[in-house]
Amino acid sequence: MKPKDINFWSEVSEEIMFEAHEAVKPLIGKEEAGKTVKMGADGTPTKLIDIVAEDKVVEVLEKTGIPVTLISEEVGELKIGEGTSEAVLVVDPLDGTRNALKNIPAYGISIAISDGNLENVNDLKLSDIELGFVKNFANNDVYHAVKGDGAWLNKEKISPSKRMEVAGSSIGAYIYRADMSKIDKLCATVRSMRILGSVAIELCYVANGTYDAFLDIRGNMRVMDIAAAKLIIEESNGLVTDEKCRPLVNDLNVLERTSIIASCNKNFHTQIMSILGGI
Amino acid sequence: MKPKDINFWSEVSEEIMFEAHEAVKPLIGKEEAGKTVKMGADGTPTKLIDIVAEDKVVEVLEKTGIPVTLISEEVGELKIGEGTSEAVLVVDPLDGTRNALKNIPAYGISIAISDGNLENVNDLKLSDIELGFVKNFANNDVYHAVKGDGAWLNKEKISPSKRMEVAGSSIGAYIYRADMSKIDKLCATVRSMRILGSVAIELCYVANGTYDAFLDIRGNMRVMDIAAAKLIIEESNGLVTDEKCRPLVNDLNVLERTSIIASCNKNFHTQIMSILGGI
Repeated sequence: MKPKDINFWSEVSEEIMFEAHEAVKPLIGKEEAGKTVKMGADGTPTKLIDIVAEDKVVEVLEKTGIPVTLISEEVGELKIGEGTSEAVLVVDPLDGTRNALKNIPAYGISIAISDGNLENVNDLKLSDIELGFVKNFANNDVYHAVKGDGAWLNKEKISPSKRMEVAGSSIGAYIYRADMSKIDKLCATVRSMRILGSVAIELCYVANGTYDAFLDIRGNMRVMDIAAAKLIIEESNGLVTDEKCRPLVNDLNVLERTSIIASCNKNFHTQIMSILGGI
Repeated sequence: MKPKDINFWSEVSEEIMFEAHEAVKPLIGKEEAGKTVKMGADGTPTKLIDIVAEDKVVEVLEKTGIPVTLISEEVGELKIGEGTSEAVLVVDPLDGTRNALKNIPAYGISIAISDGNLENVNDLKLSDIELGFVKNFANNDVYHAVKGDGAWLNKEKISPSKRMEVAGSSIGAYIYRADMSKIDKLCATVRSMRILGSVAIELCYVANGTYDAFLDIRGNMRVMDIAAAKLIIEESNGLVTDEKCRPLVNDLNVLERTSIIASCNKNFHTQIMSILGGI
């Protein structure tokens, strides 16, 4: 992506984050905003508050007048404008929906952008993302990254923790309804564990050292949830793989599912793999 | 406690919450505020940010000019003013210290108050608490309860969820470094699990239905962390016991430790007990 395109899409992302936040504000903590309105293109139920956020994303993109492709929970893959898409946006309009409905302060938006101008949008992979934004609506923290250029929290450069040992570490881990035989040893080793309920935000916590690592080995993570945060972690010099220590090479597709393990560094990552029972 | 005393100590609590919050604000997200400055009276390391919060609690209480006893992490048991204590305050000046240091948005203060005017402060039990306040500094939510009178979130009356089945429920559960043989079945049954890292706030989540239940069966919960929230849950008509389904009858003492299970109702509580392997 050229510098002028990075600037342009960064500004569009700022506007999307602002407008989507304003749109969901009146619905935070409101049970009725959680009613299922339809099945999303990703095969999961879409709630009213999700639609409100996604509609706003579409509206801002339409206003740019530039042809783009949007990949998102409810719409699936949506072509906006006429002509070849100049960008592909992979968006989770509201990550942490259940938290938003319960007013648990960890929910927000994830926006990942790749260059368009290609033969076939279906060829795009997670590794093609060049620009990523994650905002926690509950406290206005914004994480972002530019491929090859670094990662920032509220425009200050970030880096992961320097911890080398899982013993004594602080991690985020989605372990309920997971294979507990793999998880029990990890639970006994770490110093503290969190489950906040917003994967995009918690992945970013690895990028700035809030967590030493984050993992979800249930294998049902969607690419919309992780597309931006994966770039943010990698640009902060953290590490992201699946549960078999393979790079994430998923297609940018609403039906794709993966496991994810993100760590502050390679040594830490290797230790986690070993604790989980080897690769 | 007489109505005029309830009013008076509610006003003092409001001032403590405000002043302690102002005092810790500059230290949120600051690693250096986490340095251990001494061992607390409760036998755990006290960090700089904990002292800053506790000092402010003492300062506000001294200003009232009324003799009280303060039970808190670092001071242990502190007599303030001359003469028989008119109230006993059990305070956790900063619950969720690690979150505050990492800027994870769930940390705050817990204030529990019992009538004074007794022979011996050491006779006081958790069940003697008559007034309780918990504030989440990260979003300014205030939970409070008056014994025999009800529980409120931001001055609106609250009640627990009406869920009857653990299957499909949302719970908070501190399971790392716990006995996983008891926990695994629970992890497989619930719909969602959270570990935010602030016990006082998460217990209050049971009182207003954000969680269906909360549990920590590691047996090292301090009475300062739970004294206010226990009253708030009970006054909302929720249920609180230890892991053997016994009422919590702990002394108000910094060295006391307990397990805790809080649920939205008796049916739900019984099911959790059964899943954890019976009473």
